[in-house]
Amino acid sequence: MSGERKEDMEDAWDGDFDRETAVQSTGDDRFEAQVSSSWNIGDNPNGGYLTAIALQAIRQLGDPRAGHVDPLSVTTHYLRPGSGGITGEVKTGLIRAGRTVTTGRATLIQDGKPRIEAMASMGDLSGGSGHDHEMTIAPPADMPPPDQCVERDGLEQGVKLFIARRIDLRVHPETAAAGASENAETLGWIRFADGREPDTLGLTLFADAFAPSIFTRLGRVGWVPTIELTTHVRRRPAPGWVQGRFVTEDLHDGRMIEDGWLWDSTGALVARSRQLAMLLPDADTGS
Amino acid sequence: MSGERKEDMEDAWDGDFDRETAVQSTGDDRFEAQVSSSWNIGDNPNGGYLTAIALQAIRQLGDPRAGHVDPLSVTTHYLRPGSGGITGEVKTGLIRAGRTVTTGRATLIQDGKPRIEAMASMGDLSGGSGHDHEMTIAPPADMPPPDQCVERDGLEQGVKLFIARRIDLRVHPETAAAGASENAETLGWIRFADGREPDTLGLTLFADAFAPSIFTRLGRVGWVPTIELTTHVRRRPAPGWVQGRFVTEDLHDGRMIEDGWLWDSTGALVARSRQLAMLLPDADTGS
Repeated sequence: MSGERKEDMEDAWDGDFDRETAVQSTGDDRFEAQVSSSWNIGDNPNGGYLTAIALQAIRQLGDPRAGHVDPLSVTTHYLRPGSGGITGEVKTGLIRAGRTVTTGRATLIQDGKPRIEAMASMGDLSGGSGHDHEMTIAPPADMPPPDQCVERDGLEQGVKLFIARRIDLRVHPETAAAGASENAETLGWIRFADGREPDTLGLTLFADAFAPSIFTRLGRVGWVPTIELTTHVRRRPAPGWVQGRFVTEDLHDGRMIEDGWLWDSTGALVARSRQLAMLLPDADTGS
Repeated sequence: MSGERKEDMEDAWDGDFDRETAVQSTGDDRFEAQVSSSWNIGDNPNGGYLTAIALQAIRQLGDPRAGHVDPLSVTTHYLRPGSGGITGEVKTGLIRAGRTVTTGRATLIQDGKPRIEAMASMGDLSGGSGHDHEMTIAPPADMPPPDQCVERDGLEQGVKLFIARRIDLRVHPETAAAGASENAETLGWIRFADGREPDTLGLTLFADAFAPSIFTRLGRVGWVPTIELTTHVRRRPAPGWVQGRFVTEDLHDGRMIEDGWLWDSTGALVARSRQLAMLLPDADTGS
């Protein structure tokens, strides 16, 4: 693992993630995307994958000379599950093109139905604000290296993880089993399976790619639909594995808050996430 | 302080907050609002106040019989400062009217310029999902009662807090002074000054009404513009004081993440918030 920072977005190797989130302009702030089924969890594409498609479109709004390629803040409301293997239309709107931030929205539509609604502020995380104050109170969690962690096959959750073709995910052995953690905490390592290095767009996917942490406390919970997920990308990640920590902080009346942290291979905090999700009434809990 | 839960939104006393966030339909999903200057911090209205106006409009989208009056998740991107004392136009859009969640967006426009862009999922926090799993890992902070805390006048930050007419805010003495806390943490109590009890809309205001917690570490920082703020309301609050904790978790390259917790007078976690904010280049830090 190298500690070198990626100097330029152009250096990013064009991997599956880039090809399968690409959008083509069809004019009038509309784009077309080929939504792949390779990122499916069970029957439907992972939500972070759909958000990455929306961000590819939002990235094309505003003035390209501004260099606002990094998602500083992205919020996605999940309206209906997406469908892998069929074309999606992305309808965008530029909300504001500012000097330091470009803000836009996108709706991903398939078969005439909106699937997700995303809103994002894009900026430039290459540094250079002139401020040198630094502080962080979120050091990486203590966990064994990737080769001593467990590969997820999803079977413990009762679903087939087609996304495992695209993402290499290794979970801390103590947080891998149903009901393993009283704290509803998941720890793990993540990277793209094809060797593509992480970037700020990839982090928005990684923030939504782990199994719901409530699983480690309640056991098999089935599909836990996300109502809304917000990710804040803090820094461009160094090459190598990304470490994730996800904790269910509050569960009440069938709705829960899950908080997430991502650190790069140098231990720098690269993203924070929070989602609001639902336990379905027929969740097979306590089994 | 009573521990009784408010049974019905209709019981809420019609206070300044209700009158000064009210919106009038002008047809075509557009509303008019009289933006008051009574919620100003210095020259401009508090951002949480503007968000509450947007939520009043979003609340009117969808099917009123659904009872989706509570903001489960609201994200606001702050595009330009608002102006107190002039009329605002709120342009809304219904994103999805679902069985358990109604999702909508709103733009608050003044003098032809968009000031904030909000997106929210509204629902019913009166209970009744059928799930009885409960967990929370965020107990209230340990702090002295309101009468042993310090009233904020804003002078330590160099601004006049007109909002102090509307909000009664008492800060923990150990987190009240510039540079008082190595941890960049603010603790305090908050309530409406006119005796109106808190509700879920009020919580979205309270989540954005404290001074920036980074002030307790760096000293006077001037105006800290919020790029984006997301609040998750978790429960309807009991009457009485609301307790808040705000912590700057990560500051890097002039941008920071501040996390917030609100608890009601029974100690129940009623809201979580997170904002992305900027240190301005000319921030008078270290003084």
